[in-house]
Amino acid sequence: MEERIHGISRRGLILNAGKIVAGAAALSAAGQLLNPASARAYKVTGKTYKYTKLDVERVGEITYENYFKRWCASSAIAGMVEELKRKVGGDWNNFPIDAYRWMHGGLAGWGALCGTMPGAGVIIGLVTGDTDTAEAMVNDLAFYYSYTELPTFTPKKIIKSKIKHKTIAGTPVCHISVGRWMTAEGVGFLTDARAERCARLAANIAMEATKMLNAWADGKYKPKHEPLYNVVANGITSQNNCRDCHGQYVPTPNETYDTLEK
Amino acid sequence: MEERIHGISRRGLILNAGKIVAGAAALSAAGQLLNPASARAYKVTGKTYKYTKLDVERVGEITYENYFKRWCASSAIAGMVEELKRKVGGDWNNFPIDAYRWMHGGLAGWGALCGTMPGAGVIIGLVTGDTDTAEAMVNDLAFYYSYTELPTFTPKKIIKSKIKHKTIAGTPVCHISVGRWMTAEGVGFLTDARAERCARLAANIAMEATKMLNAWADGKYKPKHEPLYNVVANGITSQNNCRDCHGQYVPTPNETYDTLEK
Repeated sequence: MEERIHGISRRGLILNAGKIVAGAAALSAAGQLLNPASARAYKVTGKTYKYTKLDVERVGEITYENYFKRWCASSAIAGMVEELKRKVGGDWNNFPIDAYRWMHGGLAGWGALCGTMPGAGVIIGLVTGDTDTAEAMVNDLAFYYSYTELPTFTPKKIIKSKIKHKTIAGTPVCHISVGRWMTAEGVGFLTDARAERCARLAANIAMEATKMLNAWADGKYKPKHEPLYNVVANGITSQNNCRDCHGQYVPTPNETYDTLEK
Repeated sequence: MEERIHGISRRGLILNAGKIVAGAAALSAAGQLLNPASARAYKVTGKTYKYTKLDVERVGEITYENYFKRWCASSAIAGMVEELKRKVGGDWNNFPIDAYRWMHGGLAGWGALCGTMPGAGVIIGLVTGDTDTAEAMVNDLAFYYSYTELPTFTPKKIIKSKIKHKTIAGTPVCHISVGRWMTAEGVGFLTDARAERCARLAANIAMEATKMLNAWADGKYKPKHEPLYNVVANGITSQNNCRDCHGQYVPTPNETYDTLEK
């Protein structure tokens, strides 16, 4: 029996979404929804959150150490902010690192979006003061997170546990990313090993964000990846590896709801 | 043929995750990972981001209007901050509303976490200055978002399009939430109707967050829902409605990897 959710079949849901916007994939969502002329209109002054190039390894170590008391989002913030306190000072000294802790565990433990990226994104957004640049960096960060074997960071002194595996998340979604690593490592969620993995991963993400901001500080940052909505073919704000999470009832770009239903 | 992802079967992935931590569901993830004594140790001073009770309807209207130039996350922030400028002033006057715009579309268009909740969460985190309270409010906000028929907000003056449907997202994940509404309404992503829906939804979320902060300002805020990690049974930071997104190969709490594999 086909599964139905709130009166809508899951299969029909996904397929309809694909059908309705067939051919629209080459359009930029931004182009339609936002006046491009206004895209750079809102600026952070930069007076409050000055940036200077940071030591990437130190950011990693601080992030790693902070994970065990602050979790993913605020540990990534701490790694960057503690270095900014040391090298810049000013308003960074009173930065509310833990005001963003609720981003942990994919939104207060809901498992949706890994907190490392929005954590680092908070600093990227405040520092760059330009919505296009921040968007490009966060997009690159999501590609790095999703398609790199992680964690590669190795702490100078291991706090919780040795771990063996690196995995490719395939998505920025917390519970998928964590689950894939747990399966590879053969451990459960409430283990020192899993905490160690997330701590090292947070270090990797804070370090990658720092590399981007360091390049930006030199005037050399260039986006590595196109915005996802310019390259996907399934007509909604998403990745295009639908089956990776949703199983078999997802159409390829050449399939339609009608042909699959029959 | 069973689908395999990076050498790990999707089925095995999900089932293993369930098996490894069977029986651990009643534990609090927070209890193991974070010293409870430190949970209130990091405070925002409250000096910078003072709060006074806001007009909920005005927050909704401002959020709605801002959506069409700032998207979901920064429009929710704008709705709350513009009212805080009017009623409190001070450092709210220079608040970098668009420093968080990259949260839109589930993280720069990746479709992961709807930007309305982290947008509102930024203000909740800065205002409350207490990690436990912020976490509870964001958790309540995720429940409201996921299990309420939305959007219920009706603007005084419609900007883009009349719309007919309200839907239950079932999740805080952007592309699932948007896709369910698109299917109900029978429209594609790049339409005025879809933009109108997300604008109204952003208004609803900013309004709900404002209601919580207003209650908190009166000393009357009480969490409505337990943290999700205290009630789920599948041993990872996630909701417990696995099949809702993942299809049929997800175990109930009484099933195991072995029994299902045979």
